[in-house]
Amino acid sequence: MAFPFTIQAQAGPARLGRMQTAHGEVETPAFMPCGTAGTVKAVPQDILEELGAQLILGNTYHLYLRPGHELIRGLGGLHKFMSWERAIITDSGGFQVFSLSELRKVTEEGVHFRSHLDGTSHLFSPERSTEIQIALGGDIIMAFDECTEHPAERCRARESMEMTLRWARRSRDCFENHKHEVPWFGDADRQAGQTQALFGIVQGGMYADLRRESAERMVETGFSGYAIGGLSVGEPREQRMEMIAAVLEVLPQDRPRYVMGVGYPDEIAQYAAMGVDMMDCVLPTRAARHGLLFTSEGRLNIKNIRFAQDQGPLDSKCGCKVCSRYSRAYLRHLFVSREPLAGVLNTIHNLWFYLDTMRSVRHAIKLGDFSGTLAGKVSLG
Amino acid sequence: MAFPFTIQAQAGPARLGRMQTAHGEVETPAFMPCGTAGTVKAVPQDILEELGAQLILGNTYHLYLRPGHELIRGLGGLHKFMSWERAIITDSGGFQVFSLSELRKVTEEGVHFRSHLDGTSHLFSPERSTEIQIALGGDIIMAFDECTEHPAERCRARESMEMTLRWARRSRDCFENHKHEVPWFGDADRQAGQTQALFGIVQGGMYADLRRESAERMVETGFSGYAIGGLSVGEPREQRMEMIAAVLEVLPQDRPRYVMGVGYPDEIAQYAAMGVDMMDCVLPTRAARHGLLFTSEGRLNIKNIRFAQDQGPLDSKCGCKVCSRYSRAYLRHLFVSREPLAGVLNTIHNLWFYLDTMRSVRHAIKLGDFSGTLAGKVSLG
Repeated sequence: MAFPFTIQAQAGPARLGRMQTAHGEVETPAFMPCGTAGTVKAVPQDILEELGAQLILGNTYHLYLRPGHELIRGLGGLHKFMSWERAIITDSGGFQVFSLSELRKVTEEGVHFRSHLDGTSHLFSPERSTEIQIALGGDIIMAFDECTEHPAERCRARESMEMTLRWARRSRDCFENHKHEVPWFGDADRQAGQTQALFGIVQGGMYADLRRESAERMVETGFSGYAIGGLSVGEPREQRMEMIAAVLEVLPQDRPRYVMGVGYPDEIAQYAAMGVDMMDCVLPTRAARHGLLFTSEGRLNIKNIRFAQDQGPLDSKCGCKVCSRYSRAYLRHLFVSREPLAGVLNTIHNLWFYLDTMRSVRHAIKLGDFSGTLAGKVSLG
Repeated sequence: MAFPFTIQAQAGPARLGRMQTAHGEVETPAFMPCGTAGTVKAVPQDILEELGAQLILGNTYHLYLRPGHELIRGLGGLHKFMSWERAIITDSGGFQVFSLSELRKVTEEGVHFRSHLDGTSHLFSPERSTEIQIALGGDIIMAFDECTEHPAERCRARESMEMTLRWARRSRDCFENHKHEVPWFGDADRQAGQTQALFGIVQGGMYADLRRESAERMVETGFSGYAIGGLSVGEPREQRMEMIAAVLEVLPQDRPRYVMGVGYPDEIAQYAAMGVDMMDCVLPTRAARHGLLFTSEGRLNIKNIRFAQDQGPLDSKCGCKVCSRYSRAYLRHLFVSREPLAGVLNTIHNLWFYLDTMRSVRHAIKLGDFSGTLAGKVSLG
């Protein structure tokens, strides 16, 4: 069954779309908050709903290690486990293995690694990653890939890209054989027979021709959507945009395009303007916990002494529940006192800012006036 | 102006009452969540409102050290600073100086101490404590007292109790001279001319006759309400009850009675049954952050492996938003993964349990059937 994705309006290359998942509709372009270990750090699920999050990301690596995918499968899947009835996407585990694990060893079979939690040995392969992601039961799951390190020589980038392609085919084959095993398959309240959607991941380092080739061959393999991985690994933003632009030329118009692990608020608006439909990033949540807040007037570090007696809201143009109620002085006090409420409130504000940026982007596409409407907003975040 | 407190029903010695503060009504018996440094740890203010908290406690010692009472006064007082429009009570700082500070030196003038944050030297005296509490602007403030250590010889307990009495008079005199300086005095939306209410604190160690004498002489001095301090310092519960009973005999019926720093859910219900109107304790909030949860079936430690796959709510009889949505398995996962959401959700549940215990107590007093209605509930917490 094709993964339902419809484009409802366009403004230049930017697209206003709608994905129909087994757990509700998702309007695109969408920013997806990071729900790492089954929780968007510090934010209760009802507040995520209030913020308007329609699709959140869970990390296969983290959930596999703790509490374990078999436990989550046994409890009915990740939606039930974390009590989140809206859509979920899981990553393949490839990026976390690349960034977090110790003693990583990559072979054709997959990646042998040691857990960053307790040093135990594990293998992620295309089959294993797919099996785990089916057990978790995200609405969208990702083919297992190798996140090419940066910088990488051309021959290394090609080699890695070729392996990601072979792994992608193995992921797809495994998925086709096991997709009916998803915990919620056949739930009365799901669309009859709806399975998960599997997305392929384009790699190719910082070589536009390799990126294009990777995209073309991923499309030949056939997926419900296409992601661009291996970015935000230290490259300058211009290079990232160049890679994204190269890939977008090749990807089919009627399938969702997802840029993984980006970015700043102006950046995500920019990618949406280029025709990207989905993005995720730890930045709003992680920065919040470190006191870095995004506002319509730019970034601010809430621990700064100049906010000590500032009675104004974080962002006078923001409609979030934090800006409606609390002052900068109070938020600064919570942060410097290391109060747990600091992380809660800062995260709520930053997520609102990101999700609201995407709401504005969608509105602008609808009006066909992308650059005009957003010029003020996207240049400052 | 007398502090408006009316008793609306009685069941034996238990009283159903209502206090009218400048920031709303407070139904008694009341449990007051601890809002230590201007925040009930990990819980946003709108959720505290949803939980039904009508009166929360702020700690003078913490707020004086950080962010400082002058800063809070400058921002309009603690209510405005933390965006809490309901009632606030502040303690005198005496207990925290006793339990947290270093190099404490007590003289007739007051207590010289070093900050636990940075080692700087400070003095709390009756005048200083009162001045700080007026600057903070709590609706109810406390006379400065010495929390007698436990155990204490009779002569030491008497000496300490006598000094607390002299300090109480100095607190009262200072309050009478400065009470109009409270930041919200004269606010258009406050009752015309309403000031803070000053409560005296009964001491006397574990000697019932000293406790009674302390209470009698506090009443002669004249306060809007009376607290029983110097408890929960290591004494057995029977002794604590004996001290409370001795003091309650002496205190006037028409003034609120407040037992400071207690206790377990069954304990606070028991004290309410004896005629206590107000209680505060860090237990529900602190225990929550350590994974200790109170339920209708007793306490549970959420990190226990037996909850790993438990799909049931924390407490099947609980109506809180945590029990309505999340499973024990999920709460255990959050806690063992050290997720910040663990502290948020656990605290919400424990506070609901305490506040709901008090709602049941009030309902039972109204029905005149205290022991019957509550027998099940109060024996288990």
